[in-house]
Parts: sequence; C-alpha cells; structure tokens
Amino acid sequence: MHRLDNKLMEYIIKENLTLQLFKGDFGLEKENVRVDGQGKLALTPHPEEFGSKLYNPYIKTDFSESQIEMITPVCGTIEEAYSFLENLQDIVSLNIGDEYLWPQSNPPILPEEEAIPIAVFESEGKSQSEYRHRLAEKYGRKKQMLSGIHYNFSFDEDFLKILHEQFGAKESYRSFKDALYLKVARNFLRHRWLLIYLTGASPVFHKTYGENFEAISEALGSDCLYFKDLTSLRNSQWGYKNEEDFIVSYDSLAGYIKDVQSLIDAGKIANASEFYNPVRLKAKGQKGNLELLKDEGIKYLELRIFDLNPLSKNGIFIEDVYLVHLFMIYMLLLEDCPFGAKEQEIANQNHDIATMLGRQADVPIYNEARQLVPLREVALDILADLERIIEVLNTKVDLFTTLIDSSKAKVKDPTKTYAQRIIEAVREQSYVDFHLEIAKEYLEDSSSKSTLCGFEDLELSTQILIRDAITRGISFEILDREENFLKLTQGSKVEYVKQATKTSKDSYISYLIMENKVVTKELLKEQGLTVPASLSYSSIDEAKLSFDKFQGAKIVIKPKSTNYGIGISIFKEHFTKKEFDRALEIAFRYDQTVLVEHFAPGKEYRFLVIGNEVVGVLQRVPANVQGDGHKNIRELVQVKNKDPLRGQGHKTPLEKIALGEIEEGFLKSQGKDFDYIPAQGEVVFLRENSNISTGGDSIDYTDTVHESYKQLALKAAQAVRANITGVDIMIQDINKPYDDSNYAIIELNFNPAMYMHYYPYQGKRRPVGEKVLSLLFDK
Amino acid sequence: MHRLDNKLMEYIIKENLTLQLFKGDFGLEKENVRVDGQGKLALTPHPEEFGSKLYNPYIKTDFSESQIEMITPVCGTIEEAYSFLENLQDIVSLNIGDEYLWPQSNPPILPEEEAIPIAVFESEGKSQSEYRHRLAEKYGRKKQMLSGIHYNFSFDEDFLKILHEQFGAKESYRSFKDALYLKVARNFLRHRWLLIYLTGASPVFHKTYGENFEAISEALGSDCLYFKDLTSLRNSQWGYKNEEDFIVSYDSLAGYIKDVQSLIDAGKIANASEFYNPVRLKAKGQKGNLELLKDEGIKYLELRIFDLNPLSKNGIFIEDVYLVHLFMIYMLLLEDCPFGAKEQEIANQNHDIATMLGRQADVPIYNEARQLVPLREVALDILADLERIIEVLNTKVDLFTTLIDSSKAKVKDPTKTYAQRIIEAVREQSYVDFHLEIAKEYLEDSSSKSTLCGFEDLELSTQILIRDAITRGISFEILDREENFLKLTQGSKVEYVKQATKTSKDSYISYLIMENKVVTKELLKEQGLTVPASLSYSSIDEAKLSFDKFQGAKIVIKPKSTNYGIGISIFKEHFTKKEFDRALEIAFRYDQTVLVEHFAPGKEYRFLVIGNEVVGVLQRVPANVQGDGHKNIRELVQVKNKDPLRGQGHKTPLEKIALGEIEEGFLKSQGKDFDYIPAQGEVVFLRENSNISTGGDSIDYTDTVHESYKQLALKAAQAVRANITGVDIMIQDINKPYDDSNYAIIELNFNPAMYMHYYPYQGKRRPVGEKVLSLLFDK
Repeated sequence: MHRLDNKLMEYIIKENLTLQLFKGDFGLEKENVRVDGQGKLALTPHPEEFGSKLYNPYIKTDFSESQIEMITPVCGTIEEAYSFLENLQDIVSLNIGDEYLWPQSNPPILPEEEAIPIAVFESEGKSQSEYRHRLAEKYGRKKQMLSGIHYNFSFDEDFLKILHEQFGAKESYRSFKDALYLKVARNFLRHRWLLIYLTGASPVFHKTYGENFEAISEALGSDCLYFKDLTSLRNSQWGYKNEEDFIVSYDSLAGYIKDVQSLIDAGKIANASEFYNPVRLKAKGQKGNLELLKDEGIKYLELRIFDLNPLSKNGIFIEDVYLVHLFMIYMLLLEDCPFGAKEQEIANQNHDIATMLGRQADVPIYNEARQLVPLREVALDILADLERIIEVLNTKVDLFTTLIDSSKAKVKDPTKTYAQRIIEAVREQSYVDFHLEIAKEYLEDSSSKSTLCGFEDLELSTQILIRDAITRGISFEILDREENFLKLTQGSKVEYVKQATKTSKDSYISYLIMENKVVTKELLKEQGLTVPASLSYSSIDEAKLSFDKFQGAKIVIKPKSTNYGIGISIFKEHFTKKEFDRALEIAFRYDQTVLVEHFAPGKEYRFLVIGNEVVGVLQRVPANVQGDGHKNIRELVQVKNKDPLRGQGHKTPLEKIALGEIEEGFLKSQGKDFDYIPAQGEVVFLRENSNISTGGDSIDYTDTVHESYKQLALKAAQAVRANITGVDIMIQDINKPYDDSNYAIIELNFNPAMYMHYYPYQGKRRPVGEKVLSLLFDK
Repeated sequence: MHRLDNKLMEYIIKENLTLQLFKGDFGLEKENVRVDGQGKLALTPHPEEFGSKLYNPYIKTDFSESQIEMITPVCGTIEEAYSFLENLQDIVSLNIGDEYLWPQSNPPILPEEEAIPIAVFESEGKSQSEYRHRLAEKYGRKKQMLSGIHYNFSFDEDFLKILHEQFGAKESYRSFKDALYLKVARNFLRHRWLLIYLTGASPVFHKTYGENFEAISEALGSDCLYFKDLTSLRNSQWGYKNEEDFIVSYDSLAGYIKDVQSLIDAGKIANASEFYNPVRLKAKGQKGNLELLKDEGIKYLELRIFDLNPLSKNGIFIEDVYLVHLFMIYMLLLEDCPFGAKEQEIANQNHDIATMLGRQADVPIYNEARQLVPLREVALDILADLERIIEVLNTKVDLFTTLIDSSKAKVKDPTKTYAQRIIEAVREQSYVDFHLEIAKEYLEDSSSKSTLCGFEDLELSTQILIRDAITRGISFEILDREENFLKLTQGSKVEYVKQATKTSKDSYISYLIMENKVVTKELLKEQGLTVPASLSYSSIDEAKLSFDKFQGAKIVIKPKSTNYGIGISIFKEHFTKKEFDRALEIAFRYDQTVLVEHFAPGKEYRFLVIGNEVVGVLQRVPANVQGDGHKNIRELVQVKNKDPLRGQGHKTPLEKIALGEIEEGFLKSQGKDFDYIPAQGEVVFLRENSNISTGGDSIDYTDTVHESYKQLALKAAQAVRANITGVDIMIQDINKPYDDSNYAIIELNFNPAMYMHYYPYQGKRRPVGEKVLSLLFDK
C-alpha cells in the first residue's frame, strides 16, 4: 500500500465528511473530427447551425475546421456532465448533414498535409487563426488532428473550506487550496500511467497518418498500422506532445507559473495552451491563462490524458468517468512526496511504458522506491488501495466495487483492455470500416431519441428549446425545473423563458387578452376577422334559459377564460336540455362567464405563429388505425403503439392509443369492436376527440395549406398583439383561399404546444425552437 | 288629445315592441364657465390637466377660454349618460384649482366685453380661433358666454329596422330613417315650448351682462335683473340666438341641407354650427357637418333648448332627462302634420311666449288649430297624452307617473317651476351669492366621493385610472367589467389595461418572474440586492423534517407562486412543531414548492414603481385606534369607522374595523377588551396582520423615506424587468441610507394595489393613475 495521509483520512472519518469528499464539479470536453461516408476527413466548413465558433460555449472548432470540440458546462454531478456530453454528441451528430463523427482519437483517412483545413475564424478570431497556423508548421497538421477528452475536476468548495479550517488555518484559504491542488496534481502525474493503461484506446492508426506508412501498411495488407503493445498513440512520443518533455515546478503555483513563462520566453511554446502537460492547473475559463492563475489561484484541474474510446458512443464510458473521480480522491488522500526533476522524469518514463508497452507481459515500471517492478504488481497495489479507501470511508457501493473489479481484470488480463479489444475489432474489419460502422450506429442511436438526456423531466417543448439553444451556442440555466423556467444568455443579452413559449416578446396584456375569450373575439372582430357567433352568460340560470335559442344547432360551450380546452363541451349532434345544462355546469366551474358559441363548419387547424411567421400548421386527428386487410383493431393498435415517439404520461411526442372503455364505446357506436378487421386502407377512429394526449395524431399541413390562411393567422396574432400564439382556425377547404364565410377563428392560445410541430405524426419537422430563439436573440 | 299615429301605436302594441321603443342612445353635453371665489369670470387659461382642447373628447373649451364643455360619450341608457355627466362635473370641479363651475346658464360677473378671453388653440386649431373671433364680433362676447345643455338622442337601430320593414319597405332604410327623424324634429319644434316652460332656468341675469343694466339694477338695489315672467333668457330674443329666426325646410333632408347651405352662401351664418336651431339634425361626430349629413343621413337629433339648472349639481335633474326622452317618444307617436314657413313662425311664437311670459297667468298660446288658447290648457292636454301613452303601452311605471304629475303641478302652479324657484332664491340672497354658494356645495359633494359614478362595480384602482383617462382625454371602453379590462384610445394609439396595472408595458415573462418567488429572489441576488435567506422544498415531508433548522428563528412560510399574500404564515415568536407543520400544509395547498424564509427585521414598506419612478411609498399598519383618554375601544372604533373612506367589501379605499372574535382575541392577548379606555395618544392595535382589508391603515411615506431606498426599489424592478410593480422592503430605519444588512427585499408584486396610494389613510394622495397613463401614452 502507498502511504496514505492518515491525519486527513481520520479527520474525514471522524467528521463524517465522506459525502462532501465525493462531491465536486465536473466538466468534459471532447473533440471529434468529421468524416464523409467513406471515412475520409471532411473538408467542408464547420456547420453554420452551430453559430459562432468563437462564442458558442458548447460547440467549437479545435485545430481544424473539421475538428469539432464539444464542451459541457460545469456540472455538480458526473451524471449531469455525462448526460450533457451525450446531448452534445447527439446534437452535433444530427447537424452535420451526411457526415459522421469519427469515434477514434487517431485520425480517419487524411488528405495530404496541406489539404487539412485549419479552422477559419471571423475577424475577431484572428489570433486564433495565426496560432493554429504556427502549430501546423511546428507539429504538422496531421498530429494536430489527434482528438481526445479533457476531464475537468474540482473538489467541493465547502469541503475545501472545512479542510482549510482544520489543516491550514495559518495560511490563507487561497494558498491552502493552491497547495492542495498542487499536491493532487503531483500525485496524478506520478500515477497517471495506470489511467492510461486502463483507458487508452488509440492503439492503431490509419496509414495516411504518417509519411512513410503507406508502404508498410501495404506490405501488411491492411489499411492501418499498429504496434503490438501500443495502448495510446495519442499519449505516445508520436502523439500529441511537445517536442520534449518539459520539466516545470509543481512545488508552488508561483514556481509553476514562472517555469511555464520561461518556456514561453524562450520561444519553446507560444503560450500556456501549447504546454501539453497531462494535467493542467486552471483558474476559470476555457483557456490556460497564466495571469488569471496568478491572480485567482487554482480553481480546478484539467486532466488531458484520455483517448476517445470508440467502444462508447460518447467517447468515454460513464464508468471511466467515475473511475477517474475515485482516482482523484485517492490522489488527495495519498501522502505528499517530493516531485522534482528526477521524479518527473520517472513519471514520464512510466507514462511512456504504459503508453507503448503496457500490455506486454511482465513489462516493468518504476515503483515509489524507484525500483523496476512488474507493472501488473504496482497496478494491483494501487487498485487494492482504492478498495481499502472505499472500505474505510464506508462508500463500498456496487458502482465502485464493480469499477475496481473490472480494472483489476484488465490489469490481470491485458486482452480485456479497450486497446486490445479495438485492435481485435480492427483486425476483423479494417480500421476504416470498424470505426465508420460504429459511427453510423451511434448516429442511428442519436436520431432515434426524442428526449434530451438528463432533462427528461422537463416538458418536451422546453427540451426542444434547450437543444436548439445548445446547438447555436446560447447558454442556458434552469431557474425552476418544475416550471420549465429558463435563463438564456448570449453575450450580454439575457432572456428568460417559461415553458418554451412564454417570453419577453409577448406583453402581459397580450397574454391576458388571449386568456379572455370574449375580449379576444372583440379584437378579432374589430379587425374584420370571422369568429363564430356566440352569446356570453354571467348567470347559469340565464344561460340555461337560452336552450331554445341553440336547440338543433351545433354548439360549443366554454368558460370565458380557458386554455388547453379545459371545461369545454362540443355538441355536433342533437343534444337534450339535460346535456345542455350539464355542459353549462361544467363550464361555469372554471369561470364566472360562459360562452355558448355556434360551431363553425370545417376542420380545425392549428397555426403556430412565432414572430411574423407561421412556423407550423397542423391538424389533430383522433386516435385511429389504418387497416391492412389482415390485422384486427387490437393488433393494429399494438403495431402503431410500437413507434418510439409514442409513450405514456406526456413525456413523448405522441401518446399510445389505449384500448379502454371509451375506445370500446366509440367503436360500438360504429358497430365495431376490437376484433374487427378493417379492410386494406380503411381508417377506423377510436375516439371522438382529437387530443394528442388520448392517442391522437398530429399531421403537418404547413406546406399544403393555402397561403391566405397563414396571412389570416398572422392578422389574428397582430390583433391581440401576440408574438407567439397558436391560432385555431376552422377551415372548410384548405386548398381554396379564404373568404368571409368559409373559415372561423375559434381560439388564440397563449402557450401553444411547440413539440407537436417538431414531432408531427405525419409530415415535416418544423424548426419551432430555432424560431423562438431567433425571435429572442436575432437583431 | 293630439292626433296619434294609430297604425304605429297598434303595431307597437301588437308586436310587443314597447321595450325597443324605449331603448335608445343618449349623450349629454354641458357648458359651464369658470369663476373665481367672488363670482367673477375666471380669466385664467383652460387647465393643463385636461390635455388638448382639440383632442380631449370629454372636456373641451367652448367659445371662451373659461367656458368648459363637458361631453359624455354615447350611452345605451339614461343612467349611464347621466352618471358620466356627474363624473365630468366632479372631475372638472376638482381640477380647476381654487375656481368654481358657475351653475347658471346666464353669466357670472363679467368684465368689459374685450376682457372676456376667447378660447386659444394650438396651431392645428387655427380655424377654431378665427371662427370664435368672428362670433365675438357678430354677437358680442357676452352673449356667447351663455351656457346650456345639449341632449343627443337616437332611437334604437334595431327598432327602426323593424319599423322600416313594416312601414317603409318600398324605400331604403336610410330614407326611411331620415324621414322618421325629420318627422320627430318637426313635432319637437312644434311642441318645444312646453319643455322650455318646464325646464327653463335662466330667468335672471347679472347686471354686467348688458351695457345699460348697471344703472337699472342699481336703481332696483340688486346685483341683477329679472323680468317678471321670464323663464329662460338663454332661449329668449336676448339669448343665444341667430340675428333672425331663419326658416329652413324640415320636409326633407335634401331641403334642409339646401336651405342651411343657402344661409351660409348668403353670409348670414359662417357654417352649419352657427345655425342656432332648437333641434339639429346630426350625422355622426360632434360638429354639424352638412357633407356628412348628406352622405350618411341622420343618425341622431341634438336638442339645444335646455338651460343649466342651478338647482341640480349636474345642471339637469335626471328626471328631466327622462321627461325629455318620454317627450321624444311622444313626438314619434304623433301624427305627422305639414310644417311650412307659417307653421314654423307659429312654433317660434309659442317658443317666445313660453320663454318670456310662460308663467304669466292665462298667457295664450297657439294650439294645433292655430287658435290662441291658454298655455296651461294646451300643456295639460299634452301631459294627458303622455299619460295615455304610458297607459296604452303598458309602461305606467312610478318613474313616469311621478314625472307627469310633477309636470302637471308646474303647469298648474307656475311658482313650482325652476325659474320661479331660482328667482325666489336670488331675491333672498343676491344673484352672485346664491349661485356661488351652491357652486361651493357642489364642489364639496364632488370632493367627498371616492368612487366613480356608474362604475362602482369596478375595482377602485380601475376607477382611478378611468377618472384620470377622462381628465386628460383618453377615451375608454370597458371590454369586460368583471375583469376590469379596459381599452384606452388616444388618437391612433390603442392600449389595453386589465386591473389598472396589467399593461403592454410589462412583458409576459416579467409577470411570470414575479409570480415565482424563487426565480425572483435569484434575479434580485444576481443584482447584489439583499433578500431574506430561505430554503425551498418540493416535498412536504422533507420540509417538515427541517423544523430543527428553523426552530427559534423568526420565519415566513410561503408558497413559491403567490400574490396578495395568499397561503403565507408568519412566525415572529416561538412556534411549535405542530404550528410549523400546519403552516407548511397551508402553503403546499397553493404550490408544489414552498419557501421557508428567515424573517427580515424592520418594518415593511410598499414601494409602488411605475416606469422609472417610485410613485408612492407606504406602510400598512394593522387596524388600530388612538385613545383620547375618554372613549373606550368600542367607541373609538365607531368614530374611526365614520370616515367615508371606510366601507365594507373592498369597494372603498379603507375597510371598517371589525369588533369580532379575532380582534377580541388579540386584545385579550394584551390584557385588554373592547371596554378598555386607552390613554390620550395611546395607540391600541386590534389585529396582528396589517392588511387594508381587515381594517388596516395605509400611511404615506413617499416624501420622508430616505432617497436611497427608492433607488433600491427601482433596481429591484429592473432586475425583473418590470415597469409596474409593488416592491415590498423590510427597512430598519427609513431615515438612514441602506447598506447590505439593514434592509431586505421580501417580495415583488405584479398587480400592486394602486388605490392605497391614491387614498392613503395618512399623507398625500399620489398620482398613480396619471403615471400609468403617462407610461402608456407619453412618448
């Protein structure tokens, strides 16, 4: 066992601080290059969908125009950070046209050195361009195409403050914290070789990576090269490294800054970002900035040794994210040791051994006592330490024991490492085929999802908005999850949004106008728009007396203030006095005033207005099945319900069709039952009402409806001064232009469902989220 | 009995159209000159409070700068029109500084002819100025100072359409209607003398009215002149008349227009407005416009013979408004007769007789057969007709029988006429003293009122807003009375307002931010503002477990989304686990999330922010009485409750203090009861809570609070981007500037009560309505 800091351990146990010790902030950064359908590096520009390369905080370009960098925000848990990474993976995958994200750290089929497109920046990014061109000259463009994952980590601030009070009361909190992170960094550098062994996943590379590789690979009859025990090309001498292993001080922050500055002053590196050390001390913000580090001290550590793991869709398994976290806790709990030039050289040698020869039987490595002992032994020692730590700290949960067991297995049997598994797979298929095939699988997975990972509890429309915000680089914060209350920020502009459609772009009074059906109708009429004739009643007795007036007519009875169709009764057929009275009673439950409205003929269409545009038009159709001449209704429903867009409890775009009493009753009224076999093409409805929530379908008509109705919808929105609204129009024939009598506007909705237009059952997806964001953020 | 149109009568009875016959539209216009405290014509300009003289639709100037014209909108009932007139009377009276509205048609003490200020208009009103200067030259300024009431009337449009179908199907509706109104106008001209007799109220005039009157009145030892039987100077040869009685055709609209045009062409009058006929045919709009009349036909009749009645605050008794309406119905039901030049001359002679000699015993008048018979007889004949009409039409209600009876009494005994009663009163006091004294009484009445006549069902704040809209000439329409939903229009600008403070100036999201206490706090904190520390819970069980955390502290438990203090519990003293749990249960009833907040020390102040300004600051104090050393609590409450501002059921600015169980219990906790006699100056509280609705007092601190807190309130409003909000701040000492720890912002309210600042219990009235209107309409 390595020497643990017993005083620290005992204090944590005594004060019951284990939970705090395991708290922390996490952030993941991942690069992938884009490739075409043949596995060739894409030479197309960074997609416009992602907005500004400089200012999108989530999606940027790295060295090359075709190298996309995805950056999660700082998250309070690993689950959050990992989910966010998955969302970024999904979003980026779905916004790069017919290209794919290359899942391997080592590059795909590369063109000639000069043809690799260096990232192009708008004028404010001039220094970024220049820097990249210098890197290209110095290291070669191919080497810069190596991609990987950076893992940002910090301990919980409150926990550090408690430690400071106990162990560092004499010094300032800032100094205490700097010293603590330096110790962790030193320990990390010393022991990093084990993580490289366990996570390394770039053991093989395409023949186009090097100048002279083509001939060799041809001789080998393969599209790629691999060395027997190579674990991580990226971490190797041939990988993404400085020209030499620079030794800088990790004894103090001042020393570290001074040494890095000397490297810059000597022209060995252009700036702190070019110091490719395995762990980087960070103040805040994305880029290494020595000034900031000096002023504000260390806020977190950036771990830079992780390869993209092609075996995981997100480039890293969540288990490995946990493993690294446990490892960092171990680094804190380890006793401090000197870490001078000699010790650094040894750590670097261990790094190289793990990288190049790790899986070789009985490869030796330097232990703490600078003796060469088998890597396997030292590795198992460390894993035993981890085991004891979780035991002593009383956190021996399945997650950790499984992690440690599988790590042990990898150490004992190198064929279980990611590197070996990748080599096997490549051998079976070829380098390009293997990686391209899984890239396609991952894309398939991304496109099959309708929810946003880690945000499934939010309304679908809010998930759509967040997804689009991430895409174009508008950063977001959830102020109130239950209420779907977001804060969106782009540059200095801040906007708040509730439930995806409630924004600063509508006025308080517009909402109140739409809420009040009587006032809405008044304003629509004033603009010469057709609305159904209606009478309003403030007394239920008076309303009930009006039965004679409406008898025989098709009518709708609704509360004055309603949204989402609550309290509404529709009579399309003959109705009795009793039914009429009952409908009034229901409506009066929701408002002091009730409208009895003549039912306008035609079909109801929903026009979604955002800004000055009708973004989507759709019709909702009651739950139904279409016959194939063989299956009965029960079976047809089962088939239809298999659609992944159909779920239960409003968390999916569509709901499963139920086979309940109401459906049974409605079929019975048509002389059918669940066993009825509809003819080929016969459509059978299972419900009267067309709500999506009872299995109804949404059918997009945006491109087919006569243009004039869109003008109507916009006029209606303007009448109530709304920027975002759902206009419900009864239309007799959507192919013919409107006149005064062939349509009626029946309602304006102040919180129109956006997701229906994004996930229509039939028809094209409409860019609802983008339109809301444009309304909020475009000038 | 005069010949009634039997076919028409029978049809109305048969078809049961009486209700429709009595429907109609009504509008009243009234002029009053302003006078100073001595009864001298005010020489000050038209008050700025009334905005533009040209564009304020309710309050204008007539001939003179000091002659105010008040115009009601077109109203569907007499009650509405009359109430509106009363409001105009109140508003104008209260906005003319230390001047009074002269309640008499005949002028007050006039200066020299040339010193009477002719109305001055902004540049667009140049033609208005020029016209008035021409009138001054032609008629003299003094004559133009005669003031009166115009009564606009039209029958119900639906009723006229029914008549058209029955009686005029051959001609167009427009021609039918023109002919009908012409008949009514002819009959009115013929019988108008009776209305002059019954309503005339300008029998006496000040000596400064004429050139040579000074000497005469001096001889008489009086400040005024009156002729024995004069009823209406204004309607007489010496009154507001053309230089001759012009005869124009009333046989057809074309004839009428042609004749009036001839008068203009001959230079006898400048335009149609200068034709001072007793009834004017009107298209729409205020001013006589022959073109419009030709194009659109007759929309209503303007009756111009009514004097200001000084015996009524509003210049006319509502009974007389009803009487004129009944009279107009009679004019419709009368058989038509020729009305040529001869008939017009006779009508004019009858007019002069009623005006100059009406009250003379046995004065003769021309009857229908052109015979001279005693006025009394003809008058009683007409009143008998009215009696029979209401009998036959089955509308013999108390209102009408009383009206007819009192009219009969006036005919039988001329001392009962208004003219005679005014003469008596003037004889007792003097012309100036009598009129000035009642002017002061009327002002007193106006200033004692807190509600707006005819709008008592609206919220007080909405009443305030309407009053201020009328004052500055913003026209309004109530879209939904229950919801206090207004449409405000000024020129081409339209604004909608709900509940006085919900406007287009706040965004939908600002409202939603304020509604959500958690989000609000977050935004306030972001701006560096101090808010009470709090924890929020989404599970009641978790919340209940937090008892230990808060035990012993002063806390507030509240639902996340609340306004008006609903669901809030305050614990300032020790509380038990049971009380804590109970408070949580109450709060969770109103929201899924509940806040437990530390109670900030200090007193709570409400800052009303409108636009960029803190318009009012007040503190609400629980129901209380202050002792005088003699009265007990019961008696002190009785005295305090006498304040007319205190009422019951939220229709008054303050509520009466109750002497109920809660008050009894609270006194008991202080060792007191209702019989306790507080010492001189001792303040005894009867309630814990400070709500106005439970008898609390509102105390204005706008001018005393340290300026820095106003900046705080504005900053808080800006943090949530609100234009109208009520910021509740706990302040430890309002005299000292704020620092981070001596205040806390506890709430932002999206629908702050405005009336509290308009009717504070103590302190100055704040111009809340004006500020909202400025926000909405000022550029």
